[in-house]
Amino acid sequence: MDKKIVKPSILPGFMELLPSEQILFNKMLDTIRKNYEKYGFVPIDTPVIEKSEILLAKGGGETEKQIYRFNKGDSDLSLRFDLTVPLARYVAQHFSDLNFPFRRYQISKVFRGERNQKGRFREFYQCDIDIIGNGKLSIINDAEIPTIIYSTFKDLGFDSFTIHINNRKILNGFYDALNIENKVEVLRTVDKLDKIGFDIVKEELVKLEIEEKAIEKILNFIKIDGSNEEILKALSELEITNTIFQEGVDELTKVVHYIDCFQVPAKNYKIDLKVARGLDYYTGTIYETTLDDYPQIGSVCSGGRYDNLAEYYTNQKLPGVGISIGLTRLFYQLREANIISSGSSSLTQLLIVPLDTNIDFSIKLASTLRMNDIITEIYFDDAKMVKKLNYSDKLGIPYVIFVGSEEIATNVLTLKDMKSGEQFKLTLDQILLKVGE
Amino acid sequence: MDKKIVKPSILPGFMELLPSEQILFNKMLDTIRKNYEKYGFVPIDTPVIEKSEILLAKGGGETEKQIYRFNKGDSDLSLRFDLTVPLARYVAQHFSDLNFPFRRYQISKVFRGERNQKGRFREFYQCDIDIIGNGKLSIINDAEIPTIIYSTFKDLGFDSFTIHINNRKILNGFYDALNIENKVEVLRTVDKLDKIGFDIVKEELVKLEIEEKAIEKILNFIKIDGSNEEILKALSELEITNTIFQEGVDELTKVVHYIDCFQVPAKNYKIDLKVARGLDYYTGTIYETTLDDYPQIGSVCSGGRYDNLAEYYTNQKLPGVGISIGLTRLFYQLREANIISSGSSSLTQLLIVPLDTNIDFSIKLASTLRMNDIITEIYFDDAKMVKKLNYSDKLGIPYVIFVGSEEIATNVLTLKDMKSGEQFKLTLDQILLKVGE
Repeated sequence: MDKKIVKPSILPGFMELLPSEQILFNKMLDTIRKNYEKYGFVPIDTPVIEKSEILLAKGGGETEKQIYRFNKGDSDLSLRFDLTVPLARYVAQHFSDLNFPFRRYQISKVFRGERNQKGRFREFYQCDIDIIGNGKLSIINDAEIPTIIYSTFKDLGFDSFTIHINNRKILNGFYDALNIENKVEVLRTVDKLDKIGFDIVKEELVKLEIEEKAIEKILNFIKIDGSNEEILKALSELEITNTIFQEGVDELTKVVHYIDCFQVPAKNYKIDLKVARGLDYYTGTIYETTLDDYPQIGSVCSGGRYDNLAEYYTNQKLPGVGISIGLTRLFYQLREANIISSGSSSLTQLLIVPLDTNIDFSIKLASTLRMNDIITEIYFDDAKMVKKLNYSDKLGIPYVIFVGSEEIATNVLTLKDMKSGEQFKLTLDQILLKVGE
Repeated sequence: MDKKIVKPSILPGFMELLPSEQILFNKMLDTIRKNYEKYGFVPIDTPVIEKSEILLAKGGGETEKQIYRFNKGDSDLSLRFDLTVPLARYVAQHFSDLNFPFRRYQISKVFRGERNQKGRFREFYQCDIDIIGNGKLSIINDAEIPTIIYSTFKDLGFDSFTIHINNRKILNGFYDALNIENKVEVLRTVDKLDKIGFDIVKEELVKLEIEEKAIEKILNFIKIDGSNEEILKALSELEITNTIFQEGVDELTKVVHYIDCFQVPAKNYKIDLKVARGLDYYTGTIYETTLDDYPQIGSVCSGGRYDNLAEYYTNQKLPGVGISIGLTRLFYQLREANIISSGSSSLTQLLIVPLDTNIDFSIKLASTLRMNDIITEIYFDDAKMVKKLNYSDKLGIPYVIFVGSEEIATNVLTLKDMKSGEQFKLTLDQILLKVGE
């Protein structure tokens, strides 16, 4: 062959799975979707490609550097880099056709041309829910969100995980009360506490020219820990009269009360004053979720409350609260940590192997099995028996039926359980019962 | 506000749906997926962005003009324009990790920067299945494919549709036997028969300098119609000894025999010698599917058999057979023809409306309902009763529960059926039964 062969490969930073892993990935995705739906969220599906002026309306920062942007004809196009900006555009655009509070989920790929780095992906799934109010939105929604996180991660098979909850108003009010001007830098420093420890946080705060007295108060503040009740008590004892701070404490108190009503077990959520999250976006409640046994993975589900979703596209005030699960990264991390391992390479429950030339009977049998919702394949190609069994074995298909002349004459079929190696002589009805189990 | 507002809009040629439509769209997508899985196909999910040298390995033609291609850093990138080229790359790349015959499905968006035109989309879903053999692949697979088309469209709610089946070897052999050199042009002309009629086909064949005697044979050939048996008989009576032609007739005869074994009703499939499909890609069986009552929609599911999937990426010979449903276009056409109309804007089955301040009880009630797999929402915001009922009404939520002090005291709840307007006094167990129906 004198045709040029192009070596088959994909770009670095992109995830592509083998069937056994893809089946697992899709199962997780389906679990997330089912939970989002159970709580009354409706699906939307925005375009992958949008006008650059829309996606970059806010502009600035890392976004502009990372975005995949290009021209086609006269159009300046970009690939979405998250699902929040498209949601803002969607709600502003379709405002009069939507009902509020608007509860939407979107599970889609987003694209970021980041520097190539282990565990970082340039194309990855985000699984988002948001509740958007028209003008106002009850704080109780902020308590429902952790309930959905709980239900979802429980269904994903996790037991030991913690939803960390904080409120940006507490942070803002506290730092305002200390008259700290460069709040964003201070928050960013404090946010690194778990990574760098108290001493280095203190050093960095000194560098930021924070007064010694204020530094002491900051360190005492972020040291506050204990049960949720103890933390709320400690906050009230700080005697900070700042209104924003008080509002934050009130909101957090309500959120914790209602999470309890929602029957989320106490061990799965806690107030964590160290959580700061996205330094200029969130305005109230904030969430992070960690797996207790795998802290190195970091937050697997984060989000929070914001005052105004779509200010770049409409003058309507649209407060909201939402979360996102970055499934591609989560899947990668779980696999790296050997928490998940892929199983079967097939969804098929039963393989029919025609002996001799009993194809017609095998086909009719397959139709009946499929009508009974049993995922069925027939091995059509001429091959030695060992090759056919090998196919079934490698794919992890649990049952094989052999169809020979004797089977057709007697209507009693031979079913092989591939795991145990046992063979059974069964009627069709008995097979339906056994395989459908 | 002095902030600049960007008018929210999407690009022309992109489809974005309101929730009521999206729910319907996703339902169709789920139906297709469920059918593909029932026949033993496994999911794969290739990247949206691939190396241009991979996607354009074949090159030429419309593809190169329509592709979204751009640079990021040093990389020459493109968005996939179909799911077949990525499949070819996937199978070549992961060859040693796959089991053959490899049955895969992929349901994903593809991208084509086509001229903007009504009913044409630049971003659209393709729902593909393919069966790939290693070196060889039994002809019976070609008969299983129409079975899956039948099962899928039946489940999508269609009854009157026809799967048109032909074989490229019959066409190639026939035109070879007539010693026609410019076969591609002739096939292209004949392919337009339904649109332009016999007379113009004849005129165009004259223009292509086909001999009068050959034109007569061609017209007689494409006129062949009747039952499948009659068509096969007519073909054998043409007395064409060309080997390729004979092979095609043999294959078609087998395919029709096995489709019958698969119990596809006779009214839903037929041999159609006019179908030519993708003039240089398919090499054997070819399929098109039309909705009997809406011929103007054209083919809603097409595909066929090809000799070699991945010749640009590997020297392995990989014959395959597959089909594709272009769901975005199908959905658009069905909506335009008023065949489908969107229903509810919500998946929610039950809305809890707390009266007074009975939030805690309402939350616990919602948890119980959700644990019983009833999709439940609570109306948290302060609002007048009429607004709350309006919310439920507009979204099409079928049931509302009112929670007041009396309900809490007696444990008897008031359930309103929003369709009939009836109200019922029921216990929780009775509600679970009624709503779960």
